[in-house]
Order: sequence, then structure tokens, then C-alpha cells
Amino acid sequence: MRWKAKIIVRLKEGLNDPEGRVIGKALKNLGYDVDELKVPKCFELVFESEEPEEDVEEMCKRLLANPLIHTYEYEIEPLGE
Amino acid sequence: MRWKAKIIVRLKEGLNDPEGRVIGKALKNLGYDVDELKVPKCFELVFESEEPEEDVEEMCKRLLANPLIHTYEYEIEPLGE
Repeated sequence: MRWKAKIIVRLKEGLNDPEGRVIGKALKNLGYDVDELKVPKCFELVFESEEPEEDVEEMCKRLLANPLIHTYEYEIEPLGE
Repeated sequence: MRWKAKIIVRLKEGLNDPEGRVIGKALKNLGYDVDELKVPKCFELVFESEEPEEDVEEMCKRLLANPLIHTYEYEIEPLGE
């Protein structure tokens, strides 16, 4: 069966996010009252699997996230077939 | 008033996403049946505004997305105060 997954990988609280800081500062310089900006990693994939939750969990652990510095969450929805 | 926004900026259909292709290939090499993988840009921000929708729309147009090659969508929720 085919599935669509959306995975968001965030830096753990307190870790340095220089890209987010720079973009937040740029928005402030444009006049917006931005308190905080973060740039998590986002992955959108289409895949075939009989065990979609287990596969996505494994993909995160093995490749997409580093458990030392990241947390992750995902949504999976069926695409049919 | 304070708001939280989550913005996703995607490459338009048909444009080259080398990062997504490489990660999709790496997952295939690990044995997952991945058809397609994309890596949109994701921004999560906290900001103060009286007109949050207009501000986020402007931020996208002025800095976060390039309308020639990107589409974007966002969700905004109130944080109170």
C-alpha cells in the first residue's frame, strides 16, 4: 500500500540554530516584531509499505534525525492502492 | 498580540530538488520503498502583530520565499496576551 508521510525534525531545546537566528534578525530588520524563529528540517515522502509507522520511525532513527540533538514528529496518511 | 506561525515553502512542481533526491536514494539504499521525497523549507516563528495574516504573507513575499520558484502555505495560531 502507498502512503504519504510528512516528517518534521527539530533541534532540541537550547541548541544553537544559527540559520533561524539570522532569518529572525533579517525579519526584524524589515520591521516585523519577531521574538523567535526556528528552521526545522521537513521531509515529505511517498512510499510503499505494509508497516508504515514502523518504517517511518526507522527512517528517522537511521537517517533523517540524530537522536542526540533532534526530536521528530510525523504524520502518515494513506494514498490508496 | 502574540502569534505562532508555521510556514512551509515548497519548490514548484517540476523544479529540481537535489537534496530530496539524494535523501530519497539513501532511504532506498537502506531498503525502504520510497517513490518520491521532497525537502521543503519550514519556518516556525513567534511574533507580535495586529495583522498577523498580512504580516506573514508579506514575510513570505519579501524574504522567505521566491515567488518565481516557490509556493508557500502557513498556519497561524494565537498565543494570547
